[in-house]
Amino acid sequence: MTDDFVVSKTNKLRQIKELAAYDKPTIYKIVDAGLTCHVAFIQDGLPIVVPMIYGRHEDMIYLHGARKARIIRLLENSNRVCINITLLDGIVYARSVFNSSMNYRSVTLFGEASLLNSSKEKLIAMKYISENTMPGRWDEVRPSHDKEVKMTGVISVKIDSASAKISSGYPDDEDEDYAIPIWAGVLPITTKIGKKKDDARLSPDIKASKNILKMENKIL
Amino acid sequence: MTDDFVVSKTNKLRQIKELAAYDKPTIYKIVDAGLTCHVAFIQDGLPIVVPMIYGRHEDMIYLHGARKARIIRLLENSNRVCINITLLDGIVYARSVFNSSMNYRSVTLFGEASLLNSSKEKLIAMKYISENTMPGRWDEVRPSHDKEVKMTGVISVKIDSASAKISSGYPDDEDEDYAIPIWAGVLPITTKIGKKKDDARLSPDIKASKNILKMENKIL
Repeated sequence: MTDDFVVSKTNKLRQIKELAAYDKPTIYKIVDAGLTCHVAFIQDGLPIVVPMIYGRHEDMIYLHGARKARIIRLLENSNRVCINITLLDGIVYARSVFNSSMNYRSVTLFGEASLLNSSKEKLIAMKYISENTMPGRWDEVRPSHDKEVKMTGVISVKIDSASAKISSGYPDDEDEDYAIPIWAGVLPITTKIGKKKDDARLSPDIKASKNILKMENKIL
Repeated sequence: MTDDFVVSKTNKLRQIKELAAYDKPTIYKIVDAGLTCHVAFIQDGLPIVVPMIYGRHEDMIYLHGARKARIIRLLENSNRVCINITLLDGIVYARSVFNSSMNYRSVTLFGEASLLNSSKEKLIAMKYISENTMPGRWDEVRPSHDKEVKMTGVISVKIDSASAKISSGYPDDEDEDYAIPIWAGVLPITTKIGKKKDDARLSPDIKASKNILKMENKIL
C-alpha cells in the first residue's frame, strides 16, 4: 500500500502558489491538527455543508450526532461525502489586492459514508472522536451508558481520495509594485486554546488532570 | 421587508441546547466576524466543499477565484450553493463524553450563485471581499489593473434562506454525574490576529497604516 492518494479528476489541485500534496503524512498531519471539519453532502438534490467534530483512525474519518438528527439520517443514506478541514495561518498583504491572499493549511477528503450499527464499533469510533477533540478524556470520565450509545449516531467515512493545499510565506508582488510606498507583509492568525474555566458546580478540591493542562495554550 | 429569514425545511434547526436564530442581525454579525467560509456545491452529481474568503453586502455574499479556476467555472453553472461560516469558541468538558460539546457561532446560508459579468460589478464585489478580509486596504493599494479584473471570476450568492446556531456556556451534566470527582468546565478557543510581520523587501521607512495596526490583536 502506498502512502499517496492517486491523483485524479476528483482531488487534483489546479492553482499555483499553494503547495499541493497527496501524501498521507502531509494530509493526516493537517487532519489531526484540526478540531472541526466541514462535511458536504446532497439532500433532495441540493448541496448542504455542516460543521462537525471528527476523529480519524488510519483512512477512516468518524463523525457523530444524535441518532435522530437530520445530518445522521442523511449521511446514513447519502453515501458520497466531501470533507474539508482548513486551519487559517495568516492574511498576506501584498502591494495590490490581486496578489494579496491567505496563508492556510487545508485538506479535502472524499469518501463513502456508512452508519455504524454495533455498540462495539460505535464506542471505538466515539473514542477516536473524543480523543481528537479532548485527548485523554475518554479514560477519565465515566463510561458511556448503553442508552447514550444508542442515542448516538456514528458515521464512518472511508477516505478514498484526498489532497492537501498549504499556502505559507510572504507576498509575491509584481516587479514594478515593489516601488509602491505601502506596507506589505503578513498578519499571522493563530487559533489557540486558552486557560481553563471551571464549571460553577465544580468542587474546589478537584483539580484538572494533566490532559487538560496540556491542552491549555495549545495552538491548532 | 422583515429582518427574519422564513423558517422552512431548508434552514430549520432541530437540535436542542444550541440557540437557533433566523434574524438577519444575529446571522450577519457572525458572517461579518468570519474570514473564510465553506462553500458546498454539486459537481457531476457529487458533493464538494471548498474554503473561500468572502464579502457580504446586504443579502449578497461575494466569492472569487481565478476566472479559469474549477471552482468558479462550477459555481457559474452550479446555481444552488450552501455556505457555512463557523467560529469556534471553546471545548466544553462535561463529566461524561455524551454531554461534552463545543461552543461556537455558526451560520448556514443558502442561495443561488451567479457569475458577475461587467468589470464595474466585479470591482464592487471585489471591494466587499477585500474589506471583509483586509478592512481599509482597498483604498490604500494601487487600483486593480483591467487585466487582473478580467482574470478574476466573481460569484454573487443571493441569500434566500439562512440560520444561525450559537452554543455557549458550561457543561450541562446529568444530575447524578455532578458527584463524579473529575474536573469539568470549558477550554476557550480564540482565533486571533497577531503582530504584523514585514515583507523582506519592505523599505524600512515605510510604516503600516492605521488599518493594519487596528487588525493586530483582533479576535474573530
